[in-house]
Amino acid sequence: MRLVVIGGMGAGLSAAARARRVDSALEVVVLEGGDTISFGACGLPFYIEGRIASLDELSIYTPDYFRRERNIEVRTRARVQQIRHSSRELLLAGGERLGYDRLVIATGARPNKTVLGSTPPPNAFTLNSIEDGRRLKDFLENSRPRRAAVIGASYIGLEAADALRTRGLAVTVYEASGHVLGREEPELTTTVRDELRRAGIELLLNTPVARVNDVDCDLLVAAAGLLPNVEEAAQAGVQVGATGAIAVGDNMETSIAGIFAVGDCAEARHIVTGRPAYFPLGTTANRMGRVAGACAAGARERFAGIAGTAIVKLCGLDIGVTGLSLAQAAKEGFHPVSSRVKALDKPKYFQGQPTTIELVADRQTRRLLGGSVLGHEGVLGRIDVIAASITSRLRVEEFEQLDLAYTPPLAPALDPLLVAAHQLLKLLD
Amino acid sequence: MRLVVIGGMGAGLSAAARARRVDSALEVVVLEGGDTISFGACGLPFYIEGRIASLDELSIYTPDYFRRERNIEVRTRARVQQIRHSSRELLLAGGERLGYDRLVIATGARPNKTVLGSTPPPNAFTLNSIEDGRRLKDFLENSRPRRAAVIGASYIGLEAADALRTRGLAVTVYEASGHVLGREEPELTTTVRDELRRAGIELLLNTPVARVNDVDCDLLVAAAGLLPNVEEAAQAGVQVGATGAIAVGDNMETSIAGIFAVGDCAEARHIVTGRPAYFPLGTTANRMGRVAGACAAGARERFAGIAGTAIVKLCGLDIGVTGLSLAQAAKEGFHPVSSRVKALDKPKYFQGQPTTIELVADRQTRRLLGGSVLGHEGVLGRIDVIAASITSRLRVEEFEQLDLAYTPPLAPALDPLLVAAHQLLKLLD
Repeated sequence: MRLVVIGGMGAGLSAAARARRVDSALEVVVLEGGDTISFGACGLPFYIEGRIASLDELSIYTPDYFRRERNIEVRTRARVQQIRHSSRELLLAGGERLGYDRLVIATGARPNKTVLGSTPPPNAFTLNSIEDGRRLKDFLENSRPRRAAVIGASYIGLEAADALRTRGLAVTVYEASGHVLGREEPELTTTVRDELRRAGIELLLNTPVARVNDVDCDLLVAAAGLLPNVEEAAQAGVQVGATGAIAVGDNMETSIAGIFAVGDCAEARHIVTGRPAYFPLGTTANRMGRVAGACAAGARERFAGIAGTAIVKLCGLDIGVTGLSLAQAAKEGFHPVSSRVKALDKPKYFQGQPTTIELVADRQTRRLLGGSVLGHEGVLGRIDVIAASITSRLRVEEFEQLDLAYTPPLAPALDPLLVAAHQLLKLLD
Repeated sequence: MRLVVIGGMGAGLSAAARARRVDSALEVVVLEGGDTISFGACGLPFYIEGRIASLDELSIYTPDYFRRERNIEVRTRARVQQIRHSSRELLLAGGERLGYDRLVIATGARPNKTVLGSTPPPNAFTLNSIEDGRRLKDFLENSRPRRAAVIGASYIGLEAADALRTRGLAVTVYEASGHVLGREEPELTTTVRDELRRAGIELLLNTPVARVNDVDCDLLVAAAGLLPNVEEAAQAGVQVGATGAIAVGDNMETSIAGIFAVGDCAEARHIVTGRPAYFPLGTTANRMGRVAGACAAGARERFAGIAGTAIVKLCGLDIGVTGLSLAQAAKEGFHPVSSRVKALDKPKYFQGQPTTIELVADRQTRRLLGGSVLGHEGVLGRIDVIAASITSRLRVEEFEQLDLAYTPPLAPALDPLLVAAHQLLKLLD
């Protein structure tokens, strides 16, 4: 019995490792098209900024580690050209054929390069692969650009903008929509725009850029979202969902039995809406991989879904989101109500700073639907508490009574989360 | 209709404020025996240390604020000597009588002073009131003691030890039991003892001290726990529970209808055991106060209970606990199993430091029962996520799939909480 995993990044490797643990007799092979496995693309902006010295630090594991420690064969430069499911075999570049019994597709995603056109100029970049990172860093060091344009106020786009600003460039971010980070939340967008401006980054909202030449800059980074790599899967007859990513069930199996899909190429069920969503994030990828690996090895597990939790540090401000914003909740058919409060993250006498919390709940069920946290300390923990509470389907009155920790050097006696909950309860009554 | 609240600290004031919001026509009177209201005793160690310049910073509100902004009469130096429930009146020191329709008892707790004997020496202190803080600070500045003894490895005891060490004193902590912070968790105790020792504080476990004279020191702080102030309530016929604190229902009402009890003088239902417990903490006090205030004003609310969540910063190490430890869970009749992992709190390339997480679950229901987190960053947020998950009665497989936030400057892709959950799942299978 052989399990083949296509893709050697987080999702694929999680699947392989989990399958091995569930069934020690299973043959597990991972095929990676590039040279490197286990590469954390989330670290690229910090490499560009100069906080991470070497790209090597972003790759946690080697093929050798998997072979030696996990009894998993990991092949690099093994590019899959075709999935021939009728004969249960893969056609690799170079002509080799490799049979499989179970298949996990973890082909990831690629940056949307539409804006770059068919022949991108040498000063245009994306920021997704090791090669991307190397090229951009070289360009920065050799060409000494002074003005940068970033296309897309996505996570990677804004992190890249921050990194370039830190290196001394004048940065302008062009965003086609009216909001940042894919979050329809006007106050959050305004705060982020103001903070970026204070730090010297210009953010232009509702400003689509059709072609590279339309913007005046020495350096351009295209960060207008990711496109899932679904071509080989679709060609093999695997169903692609409405989001454009591969449709999967709760066990991560695709429309074809025995073929699983995980990570940035796959959809996932959203915990709040119950519908498929596309959130290409590393954390989600790892969790999907674990479930697919277990199921591909014969165990029964289900993926609990995603809450859309994310966090980003921009110009010293931490911004966390989870679940749905008010606008998103309304579009999804809820009857949402939201509270937005500003409260100190620590007692005044410990130099507490304001943190801003938005909580969204459904008027009918009184359940929490989402939230955002902006501040300087404790943002990670607070957005995680909201995420856990959404997952647990807590009502606002239950959330309001959470027994949260308190000590003056770290938090105020009444946590900002509970201040926001009190405010929301008043609106619900 | 008049509501009288006995006690002008957090619990009492929360009750008064909430009652006012629920019923704007209610007459609300708060009686405080001392000079000051709304005093945060949790700040005292930091005043001793010198990080807080003035005790005034620890009192958030004034009687005047409550009168002006909330239409609540707050009287200081109004000491209640007797509750005469048959005639629905209070007898105050000085002879005044004050009638009530509803009563909230928020009389707080006092330090256990057994070790100090009947005539405490002038170099012996407790750390609970403004006066305590002032006396100890004066002694430190005038008598220049060099060797301090702290009786009790309680939160306040260890914080006091840390504060005294910071001021340059040689500190020894004497703890009668075999564990610290009231948490039966051997590894936690060992870690705390080692960290204290590294910082220069000697912690002697299983070392009861009968009398002040038994220890050789220039200064002694008694911090061997709090005793609830229940005397007036008990005399009035209010039932006291097995913990020694006032027994209450989920609406905070005592055994006598119309009399409520909140804060450090009252028990609360423990979320995990379902049984009454005594955790005199500021956060709990506030939440209890809100519920009692609402119910005393005629609303229907119930207190969700306590998880025993607490956090302390000691010698640079943050220590958070919630729910039950393995030993406590076994004593409570569960069939507990626990995992203890050490994982980086951020990626290596962002100078992540080890954080230690223990998770406890019940083998039969697979529900989380408790946990502890020790580390240097993110401890508050992680203990709060465990607390929220315990409250939501999450099973380990649900906890393991929480959609937690990730960005390299703040957290690793696989959060230490989830590493601990993976480990625990292996033990449950």
